[in-house]
Amino acid sequence: MSTRNLEGDSLTQAVLASFAGTPDDRLRQLLGAVVEHLHALAVEVELTEAEWAHAIDFLTRTGQMCSDQRQELILLSDVLGLSMQVIGLNHDSPPPVTPSTVFGPFFVEGAPQLANGQDIAGGAPGEPCLVQGRVEALDRTPLGGVTIDVWQADDEGLYDVQYSDLDAPRDRAQLRSQDDGRFWFWTVKPEPYPIPEDGPVGELLGASGRSPMRPAHIHFMARKAGYEELVTHVFVAGDPYLDSDAVFGVRTPLITPFERHQPGTAADGTEMSSTYWTMRYTLVLAPSDTN
Amino acid sequence: MSTRNLEGDSLTQAVLASFAGTPDDRLRQLLGAVVEHLHALAVEVELTEAEWAHAIDFLTRTGQMCSDQRQELILLSDVLGLSMQVIGLNHDSPPPVTPSTVFGPFFVEGAPQLANGQDIAGGAPGEPCLVQGRVEALDRTPLGGVTIDVWQADDEGLYDVQYSDLDAPRDRAQLRSQDDGRFWFWTVKPEPYPIPEDGPVGELLGASGRSPMRPAHIHFMARKAGYEELVTHVFVAGDPYLDSDAVFGVRTPLITPFERHQPGTAADGTEMSSTYWTMRYTLVLAPSDTN
Repeated sequence: MSTRNLEGDSLTQAVLASFAGTPDDRLRQLLGAVVEHLHALAVEVELTEAEWAHAIDFLTRTGQMCSDQRQELILLSDVLGLSMQVIGLNHDSPPPVTPSTVFGPFFVEGAPQLANGQDIAGGAPGEPCLVQGRVEALDRTPLGGVTIDVWQADDEGLYDVQYSDLDAPRDRAQLRSQDDGRFWFWTVKPEPYPIPEDGPVGELLGASGRSPMRPAHIHFMARKAGYEELVTHVFVAGDPYLDSDAVFGVRTPLITPFERHQPGTAADGTEMSSTYWTMRYTLVLAPSDTN
Repeated sequence: MSTRNLEGDSLTQAVLASFAGTPDDRLRQLLGAVVEHLHALAVEVELTEAEWAHAIDFLTRTGQMCSDQRQELILLSDVLGLSMQVIGLNHDSPPPVTPSTVFGPFFVEGAPQLANGQDIAGGAPGEPCLVQGRVEALDRTPLGGVTIDVWQADDEGLYDVQYSDLDAPRDRAQLRSQDDGRFWFWTVKPEPYPIPEDGPVGELLGASGRSPMRPAHIHFMARKAGYEELVTHVFVAGDPYLDSDAVFGVRTPLITPFERHQPGTAADGTEMSSTYWTMRYTLVLAPSDTN
């Protein structure tokens, strides 16, 4: 098929034909779908060259904002609902399996490995909170030896990597569940926060009058051989943004009450001289062959 | 519309609703189309999380490869035929208007402003070539005072910015047409070349078994107040890649013969001691109100 003098549908067909020799069947299918949707989009809206140039510039700046500590393209996918669409396509295990939600742009490899009961906050501002977790299999038997990554924003609504003057991880850790399925740690109570607005995604939300707010949450990633990897959040019951999450990530079973306590002896034996919070949550993992 | 517990079409509708307050009507239309096509694409191909992550990584690296001297996202748009689709939508003036083609990733702002008759090659390898151009209006009257940007690859198939050891522009210039519409310059005869394969776009072409070759060409951008800006190439007749251009950019009216001459006096009076080439081409501009 000649590549000369093409426009409209004949051009789309020629581009599809150019990918016809792709050896990997799945890649050929994916590239074909990308080409068809991109071309259909441009034709449908009669995209102008200035708009095309703006899109090129926007995506260039989005890519260039990414670093080891910030993934602006994931954030873009999140606010466009694409991330949750993909999660829905890939994690459809029914209850009692814990629902998945967005990975988000702030996970960092190599978080400190801490023992149960330690404080992951590392001095982050906020009210102390004891998280009492448990991991179970589908039949509700406890799962030990599960690797659990935890990360969250502090009382200011910021992750450690958003502080330019911090050189050590804060409010992130890797734990392991005990044989009885339990894991626990101290942290600070999370608060609602705006997703970062200093990049192209913030520009997009601003131009469209959308709120950047996310309801308060703690991120969990639970992994054990033989089980489906679980990436999720646990949200704070009563949060004002549970029904207007900027990234469409809330699922009702992920919401749990956080309880406030007066100074005294906490459930893990810690003597608390100030008020503090507690939260309990059970992560239920699907066996890896259910999907 | 709540953002909670969404999947499939209900999720797409909630994302569209989140953009419903976009003050600019056109932006709202564009964002809606982007959301609909992105979600439809993911659902249609049942995109896996690994594929989504690969796409995020691919686009991140594409953005990060861009610099003042290289625009990998434009190159991606080019090989996906999107650039030519947008050009077709925006430049549909009938003959004798010169057809537009892709801008490409190698235009650089601030090229040297040269007088007609000068050599733009600046020492680039290749056989000398005298380009004799003319700019005309729709009624074929000559157009003077047209700003003409010219850029091209050399005999090795490389643009100046692809040489890491070059610190001055080569084979690019800005000229101006005379009152009689004429502009002319010396350069080197262009040769076919592969688009850059050292980035994500090269990776894509490799994985899909596509040829990276482009037929030999010289880029022209012609601008004058009251006329539609023209971005195009002139291709070399007889080139083996005219019907298999990696970026789908060839239009028959843009092909012109390059003639080889024995040493002697060239048409502009230059004494040539070696063989050399000549090429003639007329750029016809549309008035800016026709579109």
